[in-house]
Amino acid sequence: MKKALIIGGTGTIGTAVAKKLEKHYEVLIASRHSKEYPVDISSVDSIQSLFEKTGKIDAVIVTAGAAHFGPLKEMTVEDNLVSVTNKLLGQVNIVLLGTDFVKDKGSFTLVTGIMMDDPIYQGASAALANGGVRAFAKSAALELPRGIRINTVSPNVLKESWDKYQDFFVGFNPVSAEKVANAFVKSVRGLQTGESYEVY
Amino acid sequence: MKKALIIGGTGTIGTAVAKKLEKHYEVLIASRHSKEYPVDISSVDSIQSLFEKTGKIDAVIVTAGAAHFGPLKEMTVEDNLVSVTNKLLGQVNIVLLGTDFVKDKGSFTLVTGIMMDDPIYQGASAALANGGVRAFAKSAALELPRGIRINTVSPNVLKESWDKYQDFFVGFNPVSAEKVANAFVKSVRGLQTGESYEVY
Repeated sequence: MKKALIIGGTGTIGTAVAKKLEKHYEVLIASRHSKEYPVDISSVDSIQSLFEKTGKIDAVIVTAGAAHFGPLKEMTVEDNLVSVTNKLLGQVNIVLLGTDFVKDKGSFTLVTGIMMDDPIYQGASAALANGGVRAFAKSAALELPRGIRINTVSPNVLKESWDKYQDFFVGFNPVSAEKVANAFVKSVRGLQTGESYEVY
Repeated sequence: MKKALIIGGTGTIGTAVAKKLEKHYEVLIASRHSKEYPVDISSVDSIQSLFEKTGKIDAVIVTAGAAHFGPLKEMTVEDNLVSVTNKLLGQVNIVLLGTDFVKDKGSFTLVTGIMMDDPIYQGASAALANGGVRAFAKSAALELPRGIRINTVSPNVLKESWDKYQDFFVGFNPVSAEKVANAFVKSVRGLQTGESYEVY
């Protein structure tokens, strides 16, 4: 059976993606507090250790990535680095370090987010990370070897998180985790590469 | 007379922008090797020193920003950091640190590049920086105080650099530095904010 690694697989989206993939893939769930596959994506060593533990895999899916949210006028250089080292470089480094562990015709699917296209208050640093990941993936798609594909999924705010985040997403139309999970499934099981699936 | 600071003002685009702005602005040219306004945008201290030297200004324009170009398969985590610390965070930190030095209704204009939209071989790291800057600026536009605006300009490969770079931009239609400079002028002297002017 093919193997899929979901980094951030304990969150709302990761759980929904795992559920949809488990008929076709042996699903490995990595997360910060996992006992079997612990990973801190802001650490290059931690990413490297994760891949050495999983061995060769068919699909790498990222549904993790911390970003800084806060008013621009209070944002320090250091605040912004949270998004850069985690959601942006964490995902990019997963590709740079993980390619050798992905089998022929395998795939990477990374996560971005709607605020890069439809900005919100306090979202500039997260937007930066999302925009960087999308552009990197679109370009990396040209050069990945052995038929390996890469796409990104940009979710809107989730229905499942609406109670918590509705004040940040005024006038937005939340989408279900299931709809977002389908975009990940399309990336993993479909044939396209270099795409940004915007689930808005 | 209003003051415009062009960071990277000794390059092809910066020189063209300076020429177009000098009728309406006192133009200060900052660059790595400038005697009057030396700056290394990868250094927070250097950016801070620059603004302390210039004092209050009306328009901050960036036409600088180093990025790593190289095949994805050879790209290390460290290679990619060149683009991140320089073209991406250099420009973002100019906004974070420079806002207090920009006068009411002033502006920032940052630079991205076509390879984020129309990717090229060896361009994934530069694309990352460009996509991050564009998304950051679009979002920061919502929150800049005192009527300060921010836009980005994404140039195609320049006619002036075509001899040097044509093998990287196969099938592209190069644009003149003058056309690119006009987008910077539109950003500085116009009224729009949060825009990405794509000079393709």
